[in-house]
Amino acid sequence: MAEENISEAINASFERAVQKSNELEADLQLNPEKHRVLTGDRPTGNLHIGHYFGSLQNRVRLQNLGVETFIVIADYQVLTDRDVFKDISKFVLELTIDYLACGLDPHKFKTHIFPHSHIPELNQLLVPFLSLVSNSELSKNPTIKEEIQASGQNVINAGMYTYPVHQAADILFCKSDVVPVGKDQLPHIELTRNIAKRFNKKFKARVFREPTGLLSETPMILGLDGGQKMSKSRNNTIMIKATEDETMKAVKSAKTDSERLITYDPDNRPEVANLLRIAALASGGTPQNLAAEIGDQGAGKLKQIVTESINEHFREIRQRRAHLENNLDFVKSILREGIAESRNVAQKTLEEVRAAMNMDI
Amino acid sequence: MAEENISEAINASFERAVQKSNELEADLQLNPEKHRVLTGDRPTGNLHIGHYFGSLQNRVRLQNLGVETFIVIADYQVLTDRDVFKDISKFVLELTIDYLACGLDPHKFKTHIFPHSHIPELNQLLVPFLSLVSNSELSKNPTIKEEIQASGQNVINAGMYTYPVHQAADILFCKSDVVPVGKDQLPHIELTRNIAKRFNKKFKARVFREPTGLLSETPMILGLDGGQKMSKSRNNTIMIKATEDETMKAVKSAKTDSERLITYDPDNRPEVANLLRIAALASGGTPQNLAAEIGDQGAGKLKQIVTESINEHFREIRQRRAHLENNLDFVKSILREGIAESRNVAQKTLEEVRAAMNMDI
Repeated sequence: MAEENISEAINASFERAVQKSNELEADLQLNPEKHRVLTGDRPTGNLHIGHYFGSLQNRVRLQNLGVETFIVIADYQVLTDRDVFKDISKFVLELTIDYLACGLDPHKFKTHIFPHSHIPELNQLLVPFLSLVSNSELSKNPTIKEEIQASGQNVINAGMYTYPVHQAADILFCKSDVVPVGKDQLPHIELTRNIAKRFNKKFKARVFREPTGLLSETPMILGLDGGQKMSKSRNNTIMIKATEDETMKAVKSAKTDSERLITYDPDNRPEVANLLRIAALASGGTPQNLAAEIGDQGAGKLKQIVTESINEHFREIRQRRAHLENNLDFVKSILREGIAESRNVAQKTLEEVRAAMNMDI
Repeated sequence: MAEENISEAINASFERAVQKSNELEADLQLNPEKHRVLTGDRPTGNLHIGHYFGSLQNRVRLQNLGVETFIVIADYQVLTDRDVFKDISKFVLELTIDYLACGLDPHKFKTHIFPHSHIPELNQLLVPFLSLVSNSELSKNPTIKEEIQASGQNVINAGMYTYPVHQAADILFCKSDVVPVGKDQLPHIELTRNIAKRFNKKFKARVFREPTGLLSETPMILGLDGGQKMSKSRNNTIMIKATEDETMKAVKSAKTDSERLITYDPDNRPEVANLLRIAALASGGTPQNLAAEIGDQGAGKLKQIVTESINEHFREIRQRRAHLENNLDFVKSILREGIAESRNVAQKTLEEVRAAMNMDI
């Protein structure tokens, strides 16, 4: 294929993914009880407002629609590209506190929060799944290629290499059909769909559903240094758990431009546009209206509004957070319940898998 | 390194492996209770007398010395290079019947027989282990290279590729330090030792022992067609479960030579030497003495002696086999007990692994 045709093919495939995502979104509204969401994070630190507006809010929305939701804390994934493991259990708790503070509520809804290292039956699925995937498929996976580059590792470990298959186990163990993703994660979903399809075909069984990527509608929030993704390692974030004072200082440090008239112009003024988007997300307005309100009051006024709207939006969340931090036994009990519930589901799936493969005693 | 040096280095490393194996054998006699054996088979068919004299007898010997013995039935491994899976559960039972008939006795000794697909906590170990192994190590593994060639698959599946790591989980889950092997499996043991070493070092824990390969002293039994390994797929075997009549027919079909005087001359008369070895193993004599006894009575007499000695040796084993075939509930209960005992061990190991990695809740 010529380069142009390849790029057309990629666009066409992305268009199809968008269409499927839209159809899924419509059915989630109509028939929430028919679906299961799988999503999660790696326990490498606390969550920031980019995570919140980019995914956490959407998870709470899906939960509140009545969709059963499995939140995997991917503690094993930390091992694939980091040498640091001493803080894993601490970050598992911190993540859970962020989740609960932001409105995920396993006691009120069908929501299950669990670190995957505690679900042996989920991890076991990796073994049969590996035999359904070829080495050349794994080598071609673009996300893996990028992650290997980003991690700066020159030796590729087999954990990193096979991680997409382990992620398929995370998704398929609970027979989820909905996986909220960004565009860059679509290849992972495709591999997972292939594993589900191949398993069902090879073992003449209907054990797995083929999941669909639910594409995010929220635009990416950039870091406060402008231009880049918000990311703790780049020190350009506002953490959910930040104090009002820390929030103010972080926003004050944000890059803007020297133009006094505030306008929403993402192409030419990405940093100002980013702050307007954050304020709009936090206050419920639109970036355009906010820009008009501020007019020629300059970046100082913009930053004041951003700070106030964030602090306003996260006030209750931060109060709940502080309360949870003083009730770690409760947080742990949420995890233990999530583990028990997820294990129950994983055990049933593994039994079906074993039966399909004629491995019963 | 020049080719000569490489081959010298390989010989030196093999010499070291032999020495370590001899030291281990000596200590097994003195301190059997200090050791744990892990060994096993793939459930792809019944066992033949090559398996029996090559490994099964040795397992029974180690068990009877008082060494705790874990026998893994590697049902998942069948998936890595075969498309056939419908007979897996049947072959798991058949293997177990062969084991029990030949003298492995979980009720009398510390012996545990289990298919690894039933031990989720064992399989989970694959996940952290994969991150301790590099892709280049896996690509270089000579056994894997050969197995890929032998299976005739042109697409390498990731299950095959990562199988040595899964085998390390089989060995390490029960903290075995003794793995009976042939020379060709030493690279697997080396990888397993490295995984144990790296885990303990990286996570500053003493969870795993580094296992040693216990090299077999029994010479390889060739197929009845001469020259090749005895193997069911080559249709050149005598099965443990064969009837006396089937045994006679199989031995009659064996390749010999036209020389009437029977001599033990493995280099020049490999087929005759192989039959003499089989008869010697079955009757407890030496091939040289047997050859002298037969003298110039020719291949017919040789075959008669081989048939009689096999049928004599396996008579009780075959009776026990027939009895077990009529008591499948008992056979299944042996497996269920083996699963429960092995799971217990695997759960404890996984708890230690999780604690070392700071993944406790």
